[in-house]
Amino acid sequence: MTRRPVIAVLEGAHPVRGLERVQELAEFRVVQSDGLARALDGADVLYLWDFFSGALPAAWHAADSLQWLHCAAAGVDRLLFPELVASDVVVTNAHGVFDQPMAEYVLGAVLHAAKGFGPLRDQQSQRDWIWREGRNIAGTRALVVGTGSIGRHTARLLRAVGIRVEGVGRVASEHDDDFGRVHAAADLARVVGDVDWLVLVAPLTPATENLIDADVMGALPESAVLINVGRGRLLDEEALVARLRDGTLAGAVLDTFAVEPLPPDNPLWSLPSVLITPHMASNADSWLDDLAAQFERNLRLWLAGEPLPGVVDKVLGYVPSIRR
Amino acid sequence: MTRRPVIAVLEGAHPVRGLERVQELAEFRVVQSDGLARALDGADVLYLWDFFSGALPAAWHAADSLQWLHCAAAGVDRLLFPELVASDVVVTNAHGVFDQPMAEYVLGAVLHAAKGFGPLRDQQSQRDWIWREGRNIAGTRALVVGTGSIGRHTARLLRAVGIRVEGVGRVASEHDDDFGRVHAAADLARVVGDVDWLVLVAPLTPATENLIDADVMGALPESAVLINVGRGRLLDEEALVARLRDGTLAGAVLDTFAVEPLPPDNPLWSLPSVLITPHMASNADSWLDDLAAQFERNLRLWLAGEPLPGVVDKVLGYVPSIRR
Repeated sequence: MTRRPVIAVLEGAHPVRGLERVQELAEFRVVQSDGLARALDGADVLYLWDFFSGALPAAWHAADSLQWLHCAAAGVDRLLFPELVASDVVVTNAHGVFDQPMAEYVLGAVLHAAKGFGPLRDQQSQRDWIWREGRNIAGTRALVVGTGSIGRHTARLLRAVGIRVEGVGRVASEHDDDFGRVHAAADLARVVGDVDWLVLVAPLTPATENLIDADVMGALPESAVLINVGRGRLLDEEALVARLRDGTLAGAVLDTFAVEPLPPDNPLWSLPSVLITPHMASNADSWLDDLAAQFERNLRLWLAGEPLPGVVDKVLGYVPSIRR
Repeated sequence: MTRRPVIAVLEGAHPVRGLERVQELAEFRVVQSDGLARALDGADVLYLWDFFSGALPAAWHAADSLQWLHCAAAGVDRLLFPELVASDVVVTNAHGVFDQPMAEYVLGAVLHAAKGFGPLRDQQSQRDWIWREGRNIAGTRALVVGTGSIGRHTARLLRAVGIRVEGVGRVASEHDDDFGRVHAAADLARVVGDVDWLVLVAPLTPATENLIDADVMGALPESAVLINVGRGRLLDEEALVARLRDGTLAGAVLDTFAVEPLPPDNPLWSLPSVLITPHMASNADSWLDDLAAQFERNLRLWLAGEPLPGVVDKVLGYVPSIRR
């Protein structure tokens, strides 16, 4: 590479961080969506700091030199349009950055449901002192759907507090270090019958869309709680609402939805056994700085011609996990 | 003991459990408060299944043969009136039964505050989708006031998820297995300056009443959250309200109060950074059966002339912990 590399940066709501540490290494073109096509013209790298943007397909025609696209998010479902998948552009994501906050959110969700903090908060707003028992989480059973980096971190944290964890992945395994047993996704309806916490951390792909359908929900015990930090379209939202309404599912903690922001008329808002959080499970403390530091590390590797970590398999739709 | 022992059982709101398993071993007199004096006449044992009752002092005059009093609760502060303390009646409590639910409640409280689930639940009731960041709990600092069985179990659970824990007890120690470092209660104001979670699990005694006074609260950082599962009178409630109101304390999760039920006009009810729960931290799953099984074990030991576990030091006001 004789000329200075050109890096297009799609900014967005949060100002991009950390470029001051790498400004000598490349020419940076920091733009909003409307400037993306012009920035891509001649760019070697696209840095999607604004991972919520859907602007790329419309600007793709201008990406005449692109080699590498880094997305500062874990889920790349909105990014993988056919032309990008078919191209030889390498896609990397924010692999690992969100492991800790998301695992903690899931544990918090489990305890929130087990101790009844949602209904207790509702009572508090009425100044009602109504005693009710909680549940212990030690010895309960969690099934974590998604065996990537976040799922593994979540499994380890849940195990650390005495929860019995198994996993669900593309392929079954009997001897997984983090999960013990991993079930194949195709067997879900057959293996959820004794689950206390069904935890969704899977990426959204054609293989996982609507994975938690009415059949799987029907096979869950009435005492089960569904926790979704993956993507809303992993589950059948109508079936979920129906089961929560008729009391055949104990509760849900949901951070992600088929449509975001969750529309005001969505029935999930008002179900007392549901906790709604606004797609924030992955966001804690230094997450913006961590994303910036990760891009800097990746950029230095790329400039040195080294292999990049966190490369997305564009056909599978996620970073394949390395079994430990 | 030649005659069959007589056991007075003070029942209360929850029907007493488990007596069918021991009915051959003694004569049981199951009464409510108004029958306590008559039941105590000639009784060898008093089994306080209704641990909220304050009926004992008024009936104490009838306790002419009492050797052992078992209280199915952890905190015995309401029980230790002067005549009982001065007597040679052995007092045991529900030592150990509440370790797991209370430790889990504390971890749930930490995560509830860290992830902002309270304000998010309030937003939900307004159908408001307002993004906000959480905090990670890994690497944060908890100070657990109370180094008995519940405090130790809590410390181990918090450590298991990556929280740095120290303890506060009657006497300082540098090398405690569960806490690492234990500070003396007298030093509290000097050691809370970098605390994220101040957790109160201490018994209420003359030495701990108002331990968390305005000085200690003033020394806490503004980012700190206070969690009280001990007794309301461990802290200065007015000072707590003042600090929460002016934002110099980030929040509180409170399961116990100076007056219970918490009166409707108490200002704590309406502070958005506070979660109020109705004295239920210790109650989960099989707690009633666990209490019954514990009494059965103790009764069999007592009948065999064996030493009883969980003997309360009536002067200290709690079961002294055995340092591991």
